[in-house]
Amino acid sequence: MKVIKDSVHDHIQVDGVARDLIDTPELQRLRRISQLGTVSLVYPSANHTRFEHSLGVYHLACKALEQLGVDGRQAKRVQAAALLHDVGHGPFSHNLESLTHRRTGRYHDDVHDLLTDGAVGTVLEDHGLEPERIADLIAGEGRFGQLVSGELDVDRMDYLVRDAHHTGVPYGTIDHGRLVRELTFVDGELVLGEGNVQSAESLLVARALMNPTVYSHSVARISKAMLRRGAEQLLESTDIDAHTLQRMDDADLLVALRSAEETAEFSRRLDHRDLFKRAVWAEIDDVPGGIIEADHGSIREFEKEIGAEAGVGPDDVILDVPRRPKMTESSSRVVVNGDIRRLEQQSPLVEALRTAQYSQWRLGVYSPPELLERVGRAAVDVLDLDIDGALVREVRNGLDTTLDQFTE
Amino acid sequence: MKVIKDSVHDHIQVDGVARDLIDTPELQRLRRISQLGTVSLVYPSANHTRFEHSLGVYHLACKALEQLGVDGRQAKRVQAAALLHDVGHGPFSHNLESLTHRRTGRYHDDVHDLLTDGAVGTVLEDHGLEPERIADLIAGEGRFGQLVSGELDVDRMDYLVRDAHHTGVPYGTIDHGRLVRELTFVDGELVLGEGNVQSAESLLVARALMNPTVYSHSVARISKAMLRRGAEQLLESTDIDAHTLQRMDDADLLVALRSAEETAEFSRRLDHRDLFKRAVWAEIDDVPGGIIEADHGSIREFEKEIGAEAGVGPDDVILDVPRRPKMTESSSRVVVNGDIRRLEQQSPLVEALRTAQYSQWRLGVYSPPELLERVGRAAVDVLDLDIDGALVREVRNGLDTTLDQFTE
Amino acid sequence: MKVIKDSVHDHIQVDGVARDLIDTPELQRLRRISQLGTVSLVYPSANHTRFEHSLGVYHLACKALEQLGVDGRQAKRVQAAALLHDVGHGPFSHNLESLTHRRTGRYHDDVHDLLTDGAVGTVLEDHGLEPERIADLIAGEGRFGQLVSGELDVDRMDYLVRDAHHTGVPYGTIDHGRLVRELTFVDGELVLGEGNVQSAESLLVARALMNPTVYSHSVARISKAMLRRGAEQLLESTDIDAHTLQRMDDADLLVALRSAEETAEFSRRLDHRDLFKRAVWAEIDDVPGGIIEADHGSIREFEKEIGAEAGVGPDDVILDVPRRPKMTESSSRVVVNGDIRRLEQQSPLVEALRTAQYSQWRLGVYSPPELLERVGRAAVDVLDLDIDGALVREVRNGLDTTLDQFTE
Amino acid sequence: MKVIKDSVHDHIQVDGVARDLIDTPELQRLRRISQLGTVSLVYPSANHTRFEHSLGVYHLACKALEQLGVDGRQAKRVQAAALLHDVGHGPFSHNLESLTHRRTGRYHDDVHDLLTDGAVGTVLEDHGLEPERIADLIAGEGRFGQLVSGELDVDRMDYLVRDAHHTGVPYGTIDHGRLVRELTFVDGELVLGEGNVQSAESLLVARALMNPTVYSHSVARISKAMLRRGAEQLLESTDIDAHTLQRMDDADLLVALRSAEETAEFSRRLDHRDLFKRAVWAEIDDVPGGIIEADHGSIREFEKEIGAEAGVGPDDVILDVPRRPKMTESSSRVVVNGDIRRLEQQSPLVEALRTAQYSQWRLGVYSPPELLERVGRAAVDVLDLDIDGALVREVRNGLDTTLDQFTE
Repeated sequence: MKVIKDSVHDHIQVDGVARDLIDTPELQRLRRISQLGTVSLVYPSANHTRFEHSLGVYHLACKALEQLGVDGRQAKRVQAAALLHDVGHGPFSHNLESLTHRRTGRYHDDVHDLLTDGAVGTVLEDHGLEPERIADLIAGEGRFGQLVSGELDVDRMDYLVRDAHHTGVPYGTIDHGRLVRELTFVDGELVLGEGNVQSAESLLVARALMNPTVYSHSVARISKAMLRRGAEQLLESTDIDAHTLQRMDDADLLVALRSAEETAEFSRRLDHRDLFKRAVWAEIDDVPGGIIEADHGSIREFEKEIGAEAGVGPDDVILDVPRRPKMTESSSRVVVNGDIRRLEQQSPLVEALRTAQYSQWRLGVYSPPELLERVGRAAVDVLDLDIDGALVREVRNGLDTTLDQFTE
Repeated sequence: MKVIKDSVHDHIQVDGVARDLIDTPELQRLRRISQLGTVSLVYPSANHTRFEHSLGVYHLACKALEQLGVDGRQAKRVQAAALLHDVGHGPFSHNLESLTHRRTGRYHDDVHDLLTDGAVGTVLEDHGLEPERIADLIAGEGRFGQLVSGELDVDRMDYLVRDAHHTGVPYGTIDHGRLVRELTFVDGELVLGEGNVQSAESLLVARALMNPTVYSHSVARISKAMLRRGAEQLLESTDIDAHTLQRMDDADLLVALRSAEETAEFSRRLDHRDLFKRAVWAEIDDVPGGIIEADHGSIREFEKEIGAEAGVGPDDVILDVPRRPKMTESSSRVVVNGDIRRLEQQSPLVEALRTAQYSQWRLGVYSPPELLERVGRAAVDVLDLDIDGALVREVRNGLDTTLDQFTE
Repeated sequence: MKVIKDSVHDHIQVDGVARDLIDTPELQRLRRISQLGTVSLVYPSANHTRFEHSLGVYHLACKALEQLGVDGRQAKRVQAAALLHDVGHGPFSHNLESLTHRRTGRYHDDVHDLLTDGAVGTVLEDHGLEPERIADLIAGEGRFGQLVSGELDVDRMDYLVRDAHHTGVPYGTIDHGRLVRELTFVDGELVLGEGNVQSAESLLVARALMNPTVYSHSVARISKAMLRRGAEQLLESTDIDAHTLQRMDDADLLVALRSAEETAEFSRRLDHRDLFKRAVWAEIDDVPGGIIEADHGSIREFEKEIGAEAGVGPDDVILDVPRRPKMTESSSRVVVNGDIRRLEQQSPLVEALRTAQYSQWRLGVYSPPELLERVGRAAVDVLDLDIDGALVREVRNGLDTTLDQFTE
Repeated sequence: MKVIKDSVHDHIQVDGVARDLIDTPELQRLRRISQLGTVSLVYPSANHTRFEHSLGVYHLACKALEQLGVDGRQAKRVQAAALLHDVGHGPFSHNLESLTHRRTGRYHDDVHDLLTDGAVGTVLEDHGLEPERIADLIAGEGRFGQLVSGELDVDRMDYLVRDAHHTGVPYGTIDHGRLVRELTFVDGELVLGEGNVQSAESLLVARALMNPTVYSHSVARISKAMLRRGAEQLLESTDIDAHTLQRMDDADLLVALRSAEETAEFSRRLDHRDLFKRAVWAEIDDVPGGIIEADHGSIREFEKEIGAEAGVGPDDVILDVPRRPKMTESSSRVVVNGDIRRLEQQSPLVEALRTAQYSQWRLGVYSPPELLERVGRAAVDVLDLDIDGALVREVRNGLDTTLDQFTE
């Protein structure tokens, strides 16, 4: 048995299939993939990696399995899935997902390859574990998939606490010990036992507060959009393809961006934290529906159109339309007076947080600071936004409900 | 200057009037008043006192004053008020409030005496501070009263974090550093500056989650009700009067309860944690309005009536009707796009938490474990509750949304 | 199974005999015995109790037993002993030990009675556990006694971390997870496995740094000496005997001190933190050997003599001669290159810390602030100390290597 | 004023020259230099960077300056020096120091260039600060240089706490609040005021315990030696020169190692954590003096000779001879009874820790696992070590006083 010291869970015991998996190149690569990508440009201490997170998820999965009385082959499968759940992540974690998934096809297939081929495949085979079933668990399928990827999964429990520890923002500090301890299966569904409505709410609330403060902080969004644009140009102007990109680590991507002439400027801006700023920051109600639903190609067209109208270069405009917010935790199940209820049936907080989240949804148009005025006006015009020039300016000056005093 | 080490704020610098106040018997007495009273019967580590809390509130007040650019006489007043804000607390803090305030008249007058007479009065006079103005600040009056006792007061910021630290329940871990830093005065009102809707929400949410888990945990409520009943009998059967009771510390009250024949049994139960249990635990919608509004005398009558119907002794029934829940933080003010808005105007969370809080409101009837059945049935009958005997039993078996797995 | 939330170890599972023991009056009484006695007059947050500490020791014992592969009857014995190890403590924990042990005879006998009689005896009998064997474990006898009371016991591991958490002084923050994990039995001796010299040193160092900073802080020593003197007068002037005193909780003693005329003044001073100060604070090398070895009676004689020479009252002088420092951890055993070695054979730190500890050893003479000059001079004379009046004065002004800036 | 959230110090206020310096490419580059280099291969959470550490040092410097009553130009200089003290660090921080300093000449000159040229130079000039004086402060020269780089510097205070936070090893958790608060100047020397012998000792002890556990963990040393060897080959076989290497960030170096044919295998081993192991791990007393003093060239010769004798390739042997341990903190100054004393004059711990440190000093010979036997025997022979083949094998099997259970 191996024991690994972790800054969040203290000692993590690693055994059996997990011990062998840890030594594979595929898992070791996660040491070089940051957990929060460009969030570290807002919170300088947020340099933790997918590797330590994966160990933490594995640790909580072991605790949950013990609590649920699951052992043998089934437990080994869940442990492997917990450890491997992020093995398919590309550089900077979620930052490039939309880009690489669009190009490489289904993420699920990709993970399946990683679980079948190479060192991971060999380890799983040696331990008599079927890659398909591990992939299904990672995809949240089946009874035990809920534990790995679902409303009450151990992934969420680890990342909230870990991200709080490393950013210094306390909102994510949930009571994971209690949550894991209260997990139980009723009729094949993973639920929190009687007396845990507040526990479930605390999970929901933690993410709702971490979201605008950390995960969707405007500066993190701007730099993420710049990184994505850089990566896209890399795909277009070099012989790097989406699959290769997806298998890079953070260092590979940083250096690739520095090396290609077409991306050198984006790279310089990211390296020096000389970022674009918000030319427009529009509430969803001010945005025509067509834009919200626009696919990648249309967004690129809009960017070009805005650039043309503003009389600026093609790389001086980024249009950032985040997906409509969702709230997975709303369907967490809790036993209330003997019945299983979805949290949204039980807690008025769900609807309120949904409303709050919706009200924080923002469309952003970013550009170099000296072009804000022109790009902002052009964007309002091209996108047919229901705001006037004055508001664009005000918004740029920081009149906003997100926590922006840090470092834009 | 004196420096005091604190488990929450690390080093607290104490200076000027604060330094002199700390050495008064009135403030030293707070070392022997527990912060959370009977909550320690649920969370064994929760033995912190009003003294360390008062130092913490003083510490945050100093930070806030510095942030607000307030100094001189006004700052000294606020510092004194912060340090003295709990000086009038009786034994076990809020546990006996309803009892002693009813008997001693307005709490405010009592605090005023404490600020005028004795060592505290002398110190204030020596520093040229007027007791009346300190009392007003403690009562939350005036521009600076908001800082000591208001929606955004430093009292709340200290106790949430401190209670989380000492119970081990993480929900209260707010970002007090940020909150204090964002305080500002606009048109005489204490508000959080632009970009702090989530900060204000986090304060609200922290208390909403600490409430059922800690402050109103059913076992804490039961033991508090037993303590209150004991104290009441003390007033009735000994020569201790309400004013004397109010000036006791925890040790005085514990020993007084042990010494009087009439209260020895309650005392034994509390000392041995051999507590009453819930005979009834009714939702507010099942309780006739008259009972919710009942005054102390009527409640005593109900208890006697239930006892008589159940055929049990007068001390075997406690009826616990908590006051209708309120939510002070809902009127916190935040600057949003340049306007001051009350949090309830801005955040959908306020209404949701109000609803949640209302749904957690419970009327309790408590009795010795062996009498639960009889007392429960009698209580449903006497109080005309809209529940039947079966539900009473179920409720007693723990079907409840509060976190009751601990130690009842 | 019961789960108890703890501020240090998070969740503590309580089961079997432990669950029943917790509900006994003897263990519940520990809720009202402070862990560090008068140390809270220096560190205001240090209000934790013997109850939570006992739970913590039980928790670490369970972890250690699991690690050591011990279960069945033997494990139950150790768990019971861990939970009960402080059940004989009198009010204010160690503060009055020298007083009550002197009067009640061997502490061991007293613990034996507590384990045989009353509710604890019944629980042990119900679980088929022999009081004698539990008492032996508590006394550190036998193979498993080392785990409860020895150089590497779980008692020490809990209190260092807990005292650090509650005082805010970080020195006690050892890695108890690692220590427990590395425990092993070799030839019947409890040792730390290969590669743990630093782990063992860290335990030693933690206590060496906590000692002058926390446990033997001069203000804690002064107030402890005052409390002891008060308790002694209680025994002399009231009908309270040593056995009764030993069974009191903190509240009983505080109120008893307030109630007796002879102790009212000491009580007032302690309640108001209006403490004696150091008239003399002498290094051991300046103290004649006879005084260091003096028994209780002789010390009382010296006090009277000093009082007489100084022309002050009999209660105005306290002579505080702490026992010669020892260092239990020095004989911790660690496996080094396959051999078991005592830490002192292996680590040069042991001898250095012993020297340091010896150099911190101080004899104190305390008196009311206004009498310091007279009492100091008289004490130097009567005790034949090798210091002159000037040094006495200097010492009183804080020229000292202990951490005295706090609150004397 | 800018406020930055930090996981260790919570909120860090950045103002004036510091605010401008932070935005320079030179300082932003530190975001991509890990604080502990290859230590993250032992402690997976240790991914913090020189950037956040630099902010922390700046923060503590501000606190110290305030405490010391220093402001104006002198304070600005110290603040700039604190923020810039690591600006010259190469990739993986100290890991390659010996390599690059040997090649680029004096580190001091290099730092001087960084402070004079480029964006940093411009900022300093704009604020009227002289690069030479900042460089002197960074080199620890002059009265205030002691604060930036000396026995009691804020650099050490930050890194101990930060490394503890991120590795999870608690030994570094010193009381930096107290240390900073007790700093004072006496006769131009930076000292800790009266009553701080233990404070000074705690700093010394913290580093003494962190050293073998973290900084010099054998696996960290092995991987650091591999990295250094890889970098050296890069210098020899590509057109990268030492100055270019020194200016790289971690990503640049990782990718450069992957790209060059000669270093690809070392790179693969580091990326996959497929590390060399210890063929020899010899105590200093078993090593001839000549080897301990050997310069870089001789060490290379020894490696080749061992390789030849063992019949293995030139890249299969690494000889790792760490410099003789020193203990800067031993000369910390503390006021004791009114005199300034060096800690080593006052505390027996200094000598003991020096002895302990010396006894932990180890010479290592590393090779691929399958060659350990041959390389070990050859090394004993070539280096004329005073150990036999059996001991070499034992040592490899973990008989060691360092904490090696983690992940070799």
